[in-house]
Amino acid sequence: MSQEQTSGGYIPKLKFYNTLSKQKEDFEPLNPPFVGMYVCGPTVYNTPHIGNARPAVFFDVVRRYLTYLGYKVRFVRNITDVGHLLGDTNEGEDRISRQAKLEQQEPMEIVYQYTREYHEVIDKLNVLRPSIEPTATGHLVEQMELVQAIIDQGFAYESNGSVYFDVHKYNEAHPYGELSGRVLEELFEATRELDGQSEKRNSADFALWKNASPEHLMRWKSPWGVGFPGWHLECTVMSTKYLGDTFDIHGGGMDLMFPHHECEIAQAKASTGKAPVKYWLHNNMITINGAKMSKSAGNFITLPELYAGDNALLNQPYSPMTIRFFILGAHYRSTLDFSNEGLLAAQKGYKRLINGLILLKKLNYTAENQLDTNLDKQIQGFCDNAWRGLNDDMNTAMAIGQLQNMVRKINDFYLNPDKIGSISEATFNRMKTDFGNLVELILGLQEEEPDNAKAFVEALLDIYREAKAKKEYETVDKIRTYFKSNRLIIKDLKTGIDWAYEE
Amino acid sequence: MSQEQTSGGYIPKLKFYNTLSKQKEDFEPLNPPFVGMYVCGPTVYNTPHIGNARPAVFFDVVRRYLTYLGYKVRFVRNITDVGHLLGDTNEGEDRISRQAKLEQQEPMEIVYQYTREYHEVIDKLNVLRPSIEPTATGHLVEQMELVQAIIDQGFAYESNGSVYFDVHKYNEAHPYGELSGRVLEELFEATRELDGQSEKRNSADFALWKNASPEHLMRWKSPWGVGFPGWHLECTVMSTKYLGDTFDIHGGGMDLMFPHHECEIAQAKASTGKAPVKYWLHNNMITINGAKMSKSAGNFITLPELYAGDNALLNQPYSPMTIRFFILGAHYRSTLDFSNEGLLAAQKGYKRLINGLILLKKLNYTAENQLDTNLDKQIQGFCDNAWRGLNDDMNTAMAIGQLQNMVRKINDFYLNPDKIGSISEATFNRMKTDFGNLVELILGLQEEEPDNAKAFVEALLDIYREAKAKKEYETVDKIRTYFKSNRLIIKDLKTGIDWAYEE
Repeated sequence: MSQEQTSGGYIPKLKFYNTLSKQKEDFEPLNPPFVGMYVCGPTVYNTPHIGNARPAVFFDVVRRYLTYLGYKVRFVRNITDVGHLLGDTNEGEDRISRQAKLEQQEPMEIVYQYTREYHEVIDKLNVLRPSIEPTATGHLVEQMELVQAIIDQGFAYESNGSVYFDVHKYNEAHPYGELSGRVLEELFEATRELDGQSEKRNSADFALWKNASPEHLMRWKSPWGVGFPGWHLECTVMSTKYLGDTFDIHGGGMDLMFPHHECEIAQAKASTGKAPVKYWLHNNMITINGAKMSKSAGNFITLPELYAGDNALLNQPYSPMTIRFFILGAHYRSTLDFSNEGLLAAQKGYKRLINGLILLKKLNYTAENQLDTNLDKQIQGFCDNAWRGLNDDMNTAMAIGQLQNMVRKINDFYLNPDKIGSISEATFNRMKTDFGNLVELILGLQEEEPDNAKAFVEALLDIYREAKAKKEYETVDKIRTYFKSNRLIIKDLKTGIDWAYEE
Repeated sequence: MSQEQTSGGYIPKLKFYNTLSKQKEDFEPLNPPFVGMYVCGPTVYNTPHIGNARPAVFFDVVRRYLTYLGYKVRFVRNITDVGHLLGDTNEGEDRISRQAKLEQQEPMEIVYQYTREYHEVIDKLNVLRPSIEPTATGHLVEQMELVQAIIDQGFAYESNGSVYFDVHKYNEAHPYGELSGRVLEELFEATRELDGQSEKRNSADFALWKNASPEHLMRWKSPWGVGFPGWHLECTVMSTKYLGDTFDIHGGGMDLMFPHHECEIAQAKASTGKAPVKYWLHNNMITINGAKMSKSAGNFITLPELYAGDNALLNQPYSPMTIRFFILGAHYRSTLDFSNEGLLAAQKGYKRLINGLILLKKLNYTAENQLDTNLDKQIQGFCDNAWRGLNDDMNTAMAIGQLQNMVRKINDFYLNPDKIGSISEATFNRMKTDFGNLVELILGLQEEEPDNAKAFVEALLDIYREAKAKKEYETVDKIRTYFKSNRLIIKDLKTGIDWAYEE
């Protein structure tokens, strides 16, 4: 396992900013060459929006980069299909059940519909599918076992058919709030007073298992009665089942840090005594024209709307690769503001990069002629800095900046092929390899080819008609042969010229 | 709810051949307009093959037709991700676990990999996704509950940590073998003698829950010890959970009739006393060049191989729509033989139908002129017979035959538009509506457009180069404008003529 991925100058090792330690740390996996990585996936009750795109794209690049470095990554991203309540509190309605009532469907129809939609729109962003995509309902037995283990350790209590995690008791054994920095006393002050009617001993306690009334749509028998699992439980169960009690990387949006990830740590430590995760990575939030995105503010943009330009806030459609480029154009720990200006700039930047990639693939080294050591060094520097950027807590923006510097040189080489000889063959080959690997393998940017072949067929037929009228038979024959080789036929009918599929 | 879908002559109601009654029966759903339909899906441990395509395509057409008739269909198709043993016996190794060992993966990685592959290749056949796609591991709690219910009813017994269905005891209360026609006494004679070491009381008994040793990869805690569910259990649980104790249609391949579907009936009746299914539909098997397909016979063809022409048995690639057409070209209760000759004929037939559809969409009724009553009646007859075919136990072959008859007329009308007036406007409109609905909505055949736009772009650029050399500036300008409108630019460089994406 080597992190020395380049032949260039000294490049510091890969570091991640660990939310747990609040500092950048060298990445040293627990059991190299294996890396276990868990990222919180969607609750499948609505159409994916731009807030879903950021963690999907960013953690895809982390996974791609680790794979590029030679690690064998098992990447688990879950689907939450039960237990995620509105308002993220213990009291709201289940998001999927509510949507099922609204759409007059069975909850599992809602789950399947929005899981498919998530796949469809996120696949377009060239985000690789996880190794395993577990669901909460697919791990009920394991969740009940974890609840029992936490009860057995004395960190949870049963109350009226529900089971709650005893935060106070836990805090006596392990520090609660170590990830988010919240202090338990403040939490108590911040939450409303219990009115004596609550099932909970303390307001900071959270549900591991919730009692469900008969009209509740999604419910299962458990040792504590009929109910459903608490939202935080599934991620602890599914991450440790597939990655072990302690694994390397846990990712997710910053908004999940508290309570979700804090509770994951508590549940794991309460049952096994071990910290579940070595590196906690959190991406920052997105804004729209500077404001927080929310349905009530009327600035909510779904990904299909973005792809189609179908939202009053959008001046035009933006392609999936434009959005991917846009997301990677900012560091993941900064907020990212969606605006037409920003997206348009990303569109330009993306196309520039892809045009550069296409040209670079056409270039070949000729013979060396009068080495320009400055230019040679400059290009080596672009390569070095791109890797330095990635290794410095995944600074994709810096990597992209270096790639754009390279595009300027590529364009120049393409127009003046004789200049290629003024850098060494080693430098030329390194640029070619690094550029391709960075753009395609690691950043996952790919060419968006024209997809309207039928329109081009019509254009050719149009030229055919004209050529025929003008008796330009060379062109006529050329087009006819071209159609034939694509299993299409041109039909010269008395009613006009048309084309059809060869039968 | 009306099954009178056409304005034509009298058409008998939709009938299905019910494997349970061994006769064709009028289709009368239990709770119209709702129809509950369950079809056995794949065990996700290998690449989908042509044997997977037939039930996927056929039951998709059943669902599409019922939807067309106005029924609200809830279509459930499961994913078997645990419990399906090799040889379908109680003793073989779990198929997914074995594949996981072969590929050195976690079983759930195998499950996710082959679930995705199934989706990918079956989606290409234009098979609609089910309303719900439940998994066996997603219904363990429910499966344990069903086991307990069958024990409680006295039809199952625990033995050494496993639970078996007591076929003899069941047969005293309900006839066992009513679907497959197998007689219990024969079953006993056919199965090998128990050697006294078996956990089972009788050889015909089947596992509801299997005890699993610690080295077994997929195992869960249950009231009877750590183990995993029997294969037949999941379908009973998932069909009745989402469709009710008794639902309308259960589909699957003929090879599943015994023991799988027979056991489903027994499990359901043993627990609820009710027959689970009103109409049992079974598609017949496929052969390859007349022989049964099997890995050992070396005539196993996967769907990706078929699409790519990448198998020694194939002369060329066959497109997904060619395969769909081919499957629908035979009645579902006949065997279907895959051969290059058959597939080539299907390719021709499919393209003919699609060319006809494209032409028909271009045709418009003119004024009536000298009605040709024979022709008019003939076309009405084609329409009537297509629906008659579908209603007669889904005779898609007959429907396709009638559509091909219509194509002959469409081609004639296209070449001689003045002839359109020799049929009535009502007949013309009916043909247009029926043809489109049958081809696109019900049979699910769609145009396979050329998908190589970039090749057509290069062809246009080639013509541009020549036109420029010949100073045919009209063509030059035309192509340049055409590129521009597709956000492509033509670059006239000193090194040559090239194109790029507009930045």
